[in-house]
Amino acid sequence: MLAGPYFKRHPGVREMLTATVCVALLGCLQAQELHGHVSIILLGATGDLARKYLWQGLFQLYLDEAGKGHSFRFHGTALTSTEQGQEIIAKVLESLSCPSDTAPARCAELRTWFQQLSEYRRLKTPEDYLALSRDIEARVQHEGRREAGRIFYFSVPPFAYADIARNINSSCRPGQGAWLRVVFEKPFGRDHQSAQQLATELGSFFREEEMYRVDHYLGKQVVAQILPFRDQNRKALDGLWNRHHVERVEVVMKETVDAEGRTSFYEEYGVIRDVLQNHLTEILTLVAMELPRNVSSPEAVLQHKLQAFQALRGLQKSSAVLGQYQAYSQQVRRELQKPDSVHSLTPTFAGILVHIDNLRWEGVPFILVSGKALDERVSYVRLLLKNQAYCAQSEKHWAAERSQCLPRQIVFYIGHGELGSPAVLVSRNLFRPSLPSASWREVEDRPGLRLFGRPLSDFYAYSPVREQDAYSILMSRIFHHRKDSFVTTENLLASWVFWTPLLESLAHEVPRLYPGGAENGPVLDFEFGDNRLSFSQPPPEQVVPGPGSAPTPSDFQVLTAQYRHSPLISAWPEELIARLAGDIEATAVRAVQRFGKFHLALSGGSSPVALFQQLATGHYGFPWAHTHLWLVDERCVPLWDPESNFQGLQAHLLQHVRVPHYNVHPMPVQRHQRLCAEEDRGAQAYAEEISALVTNSSFDLVLLGMGTDGHTASLFPQSPAGLDGEQLVVLTESPSRPFQRMSLSLPLINRARKVAVLVMGRMKREIAMLVSRVGHEPKKWPISGVLPDSGQLVWYMDYEAFLG
Amino acid sequence: MLAGPYFKRHPGVREMLTATVCVALLGCLQAQELHGHVSIILLGATGDLARKYLWQGLFQLYLDEAGKGHSFRFHGTALTSTEQGQEIIAKVLESLSCPSDTAPARCAELRTWFQQLSEYRRLKTPEDYLALSRDIEARVQHEGRREAGRIFYFSVPPFAYADIARNINSSCRPGQGAWLRVVFEKPFGRDHQSAQQLATELGSFFREEEMYRVDHYLGKQVVAQILPFRDQNRKALDGLWNRHHVERVEVVMKETVDAEGRTSFYEEYGVIRDVLQNHLTEILTLVAMELPRNVSSPEAVLQHKLQAFQALRGLQKSSAVLGQYQAYSQQVRRELQKPDSVHSLTPTFAGILVHIDNLRWEGVPFILVSGKALDERVSYVRLLLKNQAYCAQSEKHWAAERSQCLPRQIVFYIGHGELGSPAVLVSRNLFRPSLPSASWREVEDRPGLRLFGRPLSDFYAYSPVREQDAYSILMSRIFHHRKDSFVTTENLLASWVFWTPLLESLAHEVPRLYPGGAENGPVLDFEFGDNRLSFSQPPPEQVVPGPGSAPTPSDFQVLTAQYRHSPLISAWPEELIARLAGDIEATAVRAVQRFGKFHLALSGGSSPVALFQQLATGHYGFPWAHTHLWLVDERCVPLWDPESNFQGLQAHLLQHVRVPHYNVHPMPVQRHQRLCAEEDRGAQAYAEEISALVTNSSFDLVLLGMGTDGHTASLFPQSPAGLDGEQLVVLTESPSRPFQRMSLSLPLINRARKVAVLVMGRMKREIAMLVSRVGHEPKKWPISGVLPDSGQLVWYMDYEAFLG
Repeated sequence: MLAGPYFKRHPGVREMLTATVCVALLGCLQAQELHGHVSIILLGATGDLARKYLWQGLFQLYLDEAGKGHSFRFHGTALTSTEQGQEIIAKVLESLSCPSDTAPARCAELRTWFQQLSEYRRLKTPEDYLALSRDIEARVQHEGRREAGRIFYFSVPPFAYADIARNINSSCRPGQGAWLRVVFEKPFGRDHQSAQQLATELGSFFREEEMYRVDHYLGKQVVAQILPFRDQNRKALDGLWNRHHVERVEVVMKETVDAEGRTSFYEEYGVIRDVLQNHLTEILTLVAMELPRNVSSPEAVLQHKLQAFQALRGLQKSSAVLGQYQAYSQQVRRELQKPDSVHSLTPTFAGILVHIDNLRWEGVPFILVSGKALDERVSYVRLLLKNQAYCAQSEKHWAAERSQCLPRQIVFYIGHGELGSPAVLVSRNLFRPSLPSASWREVEDRPGLRLFGRPLSDFYAYSPVREQDAYSILMSRIFHHRKDSFVTTENLLASWVFWTPLLESLAHEVPRLYPGGAENGPVLDFEFGDNRLSFSQPPPEQVVPGPGSAPTPSDFQVLTAQYRHSPLISAWPEELIARLAGDIEATAVRAVQRFGKFHLALSGGSSPVALFQQLATGHYGFPWAHTHLWLVDERCVPLWDPESNFQGLQAHLLQHVRVPHYNVHPMPVQRHQRLCAEEDRGAQAYAEEISALVTNSSFDLVLLGMGTDGHTASLFPQSPAGLDGEQLVVLTESPSRPFQRMSLSLPLINRARKVAVLVMGRMKREIAMLVSRVGHEPKKWPISGVLPDSGQLVWYMDYEAFLG
Repeated sequence: MLAGPYFKRHPGVREMLTATVCVALLGCLQAQELHGHVSIILLGATGDLARKYLWQGLFQLYLDEAGKGHSFRFHGTALTSTEQGQEIIAKVLESLSCPSDTAPARCAELRTWFQQLSEYRRLKTPEDYLALSRDIEARVQHEGRREAGRIFYFSVPPFAYADIARNINSSCRPGQGAWLRVVFEKPFGRDHQSAQQLATELGSFFREEEMYRVDHYLGKQVVAQILPFRDQNRKALDGLWNRHHVERVEVVMKETVDAEGRTSFYEEYGVIRDVLQNHLTEILTLVAMELPRNVSSPEAVLQHKLQAFQALRGLQKSSAVLGQYQAYSQQVRRELQKPDSVHSLTPTFAGILVHIDNLRWEGVPFILVSGKALDERVSYVRLLLKNQAYCAQSEKHWAAERSQCLPRQIVFYIGHGELGSPAVLVSRNLFRPSLPSASWREVEDRPGLRLFGRPLSDFYAYSPVREQDAYSILMSRIFHHRKDSFVTTENLLASWVFWTPLLESLAHEVPRLYPGGAENGPVLDFEFGDNRLSFSQPPPEQVVPGPGSAPTPSDFQVLTAQYRHSPLISAWPEELIARLAGDIEATAVRAVQRFGKFHLALSGGSSPVALFQQLATGHYGFPWAHTHLWLVDERCVPLWDPESNFQGLQAHLLQHVRVPHYNVHPMPVQRHQRLCAEEDRGAQAYAEEISALVTNSSFDLVLLGMGTDGHTASLFPQSPAGLDGEQLVVLTESPSRPFQRMSLSLPLINRARKVAVLVMGRMKREIAMLVSRVGHEPKKWPISGVLPDSGQLVWYMDYEAFLG
């Protein structure tokens, strides 16, 4: 047999030889002894996951790789005593299965070889780890090989990670020249902070390239095919894979089982942490990411994934609908021994609307759905393309292959469901996809079977020639150092950064109850508008009393009264914003009718954001083309700084309406590369711009807010600038960062035809109460100085600020 | 019987009395003689239209109105001799039909009365008109009534209009206190100019309020119901009738008949003039217009219609697909006695994509379709709403009434088709519409009947209780002075303004041939993207040789060569633009990678518009957020002037991509309310802005054009400014209006890292040839001075400019 160095010089020859010699499957398992020795240590080898999937995965790895000249040893370890452990493992090893085309006798033989290479050992103390390491070294020496590396597979609860990791790091690392790979199973924390903590901890023992975080969905054949499919069908997909052609993307994992027996885990995680944060998010990024030139470069894939994460629009409470199957709370009470009064708020169903703010995907809804106790078990990613065709003949003449009026879809059917097997589906009126013909074959038609609204025959449908278990695939990828099939620390944290704010905002949300199974009917159907999701059906009677039983906005009417001798409009936030937006539009329309233009000065902050969004989406009659937008105040930061008021205006309003460029008037806080330098006369320049364009320097409408200290615009208590005098625009000092500000002056504000003050939130309750009682004391409370000379002042307060 | 003055003082009483006395239908036809006398003169009374529809319409009017105390006389007139005419009319009157619920004997009686009030007379000379007028006066006097008014219905070819109009105006106007109404039938011209001419001519005889232009589609019951439906269902429709919810609007009139026997007319008009410019456009505006508060105010309706016309985006050649049924040319040859070599280019099928550029409809495709020799006869307007729902259960559980995942549609079914009668259809998962219950009733289900992809039972469907002919309805509307059912001059001209440019650009377009009838298959199916329509199927072999057989862009490859010792890229326009856009994107990506930003200076004009559109729609990877946009030159007009280069940039690029506001740098041509005043130092200010932001004042890419006089940027021959020297930005003089310009100087342009010169169109052929031969003579040909100091120069020329 030819020796190693020969192959090093002629790299193709070994594979050729191997292929020639090992014709029959595994016909030369122990024939070649050319690679180094690999030890695989399965921690928690007697546990559920290990027994169900991991040993089988190791066996498959052995079957796939041993014939290529690797030497293996498999160490199952746990805290269990040696005898007990050996007994369990022996049973597991007896039940291992071979690929379906292996003869039983041959399979028994293969299993025996694998059993000979496998052992159980208790692994508890640092000494145990040291002993293991020594045993491995001895074995390697005995075999006359070099050590290639060690794989530690953590199939243990996360609380055990640190201890084991410390022991591996200090006592069980392989010698120089050999690699170490440690494999972890989720959960990887339950929010960004805990995930970060865990990552830091593990990072103190292992280098990033040594760590493999398993998301077993990445091992599913169809999921693993997404990037190769996009790559191999670049030409057909290039024009389609974007917002111009994709109507929506659904990423779905539906289950029929419920959480019975697992409620102690489930109570802590819920469906979003259990499925959406990991599996569905990974799939989402595989679909959404820009396709690297080289899809088999883990670095490029990771980099593009991270870019996709960066483009995800932040989730709001309104991006989610939550459900809980009716029996869940009782299961929780029973399993966790809780009193009858306990009602869980843990969601077992979630629908999430994700938007991606880049040019490729802007406006395309990505719908993520998962739930337990639903009507069917199925997982898929479905891209529905826009119907942009008109068919001149009536429908009965449409043909599946040709008619562009029939639905056009690309579906990665991950598994189960009515089809029953993984598949890639492409509507026949799209294109014939290219898949590796060695491993994928066309699915035979099954008349009567309909998928996604069409008969199966409407699709080009391909299934794997050989169905493979996700763990077997992942074992192989670990062995081959294919890190793109695993979740890196950066990737993990990016995902938590995305999900954590939503999870926090939903913490006290009452999920809608659903009966479970086919009886759910349309109770969980939901609809999406711009940035909002809501259930299609009105809520059924809730059995669980919770925070949700507080009065809701629709129970109240908009209230009109007086505040500081001026009209006060008060309502729940949503209605208040709608009312204010309506009033602004009416003012705008009147102004444009009378004067041909409308001068609107806007404040920054968070309350106006909702207003901007409302104006951007709901107001068709708004005369944007004739509207001039001015800033009430600005922070002395560059306009592109996220802290800039202008940025909020730009992101939430300007990007969505057609205000001509030259009608937008940001404050010149930056001139000559400096910020708010007196000598750059930015305030004066803004004042001149106002004087030149706004008749009498009298804005048609000024929108103000009120700070908890009684400030308004950027006019702060105990700071004289801008409270009186001739100056229209002033530089001021804020008590909080960034300190420097530019602001319209009180005299200028008071020249407006109309001033609206928007005050929202519980935080404003006290100051609202106080200001209601004080007189005209602008030096103490600048807001009290707002009193238009001849214009109108209107207060818009939500109930939280006003009624408390 | 009570006399007239009593009723004037007690206006309600007459109706009450009438209602009491006239219980049975028409039971008191001649019982009341209270209103004035109305003469209706049907011009062309022996013609086709008159015989088929108009006499019946007059009879219906008589049945409806005579009982209310009007006195009528119906004068059928033509050029035919009296005997012949009387004979024809007598036959027509014999065949008039009554409403279906009238007993035959009663009908005969009614018909006799009507016949007694009708007469035929020849109307040819001015004397004839005068005689008619005198007869009317005599009759009025004889009846002891006052004259209420006269209606002249022009059922004659347009060439006869002027003569008749002159005669009416000079010899047949009623006396003071009585009204005149003149009614015209289309065609109203064949383009804007001829329509304007005709309108001016008629306007010299009649006042606008006297004229009624008939579009008989406005008399169709379902069309007439569009505005009332929108009004009565405001609450349900308010949230839906906009771009957020409407996916598309189809306005369709399909015919099975062809043009045989009418080709002499059809050859001159074609399907767009025959159907789209009038019927479909009227319907389009009824759907698209903002709904007036009072939908029965003709003034408000007209005003809102005109606003809708203003918001229509101009049509391009690419907004249309045209077809012609295969037998048409032969029919033309036969009927018009043309030689075999004649092939008509007249379209008998058209699909048009209309966009409406306002906030309500932006982005919603309005598809207008009409054709002859299609597979079915049907007319409808269909609003398909967006599917914005996710249904958590598999489809088999979806219920028509509730599931938001089933299609949601609102259809005004004008007539024919599989339903066979006019109807208003609203999907049951939308809302139950409100229609006047006296005149509309629910359609009974017809199992097996599917409309628009769904069984009839999926819709709330309402049909008129009594089907009425469009002409009967219009006669009544003329009588009742309901001008909103007719096409005003303004409305007509607005429609021609919209359609004429398209008609001109399509004049030499070869329509796709289709076999006709059910055999058409998908050959006429088409697809729409942003602003383009195209047939879904590749073209079948064309039988007609025509201009379309010239080489098409895809027959050629992009050509690379040298021009003035620099790289030249040459191609057909579309590919050239695609290539240039691709090159700019690549340059941008590299610049952002290296420097974090990309400085791009753009020229104005028409060639860049296509480039802007390409960049706006196709380039997902373009780093807009890091791109700074500068102007190469600007006209000294306000930035909001349509002539401003900045306007083009704004309309075609900025509105569609997300360039931050502060990265956009328009030239400061207007300062202190003045344009390009030397002393305002605008050029210097721009130069300073460049120096401050652009490293070394070296743009990453400058895009130039070339004028037919060899100018580039706004640097003109024989004008020294900006050709050399230190100044980066200069004021210059153009030989054409507007004379004053601001421009980057040649030295600044030549500092760029890359300069691209885009030259397109036959007009540029000569100068391109000339410039290819001259040396460095910027004073004669400024373009010859473009030679980057250390950057790269690339020429992009289309074949027309380059090869000629």
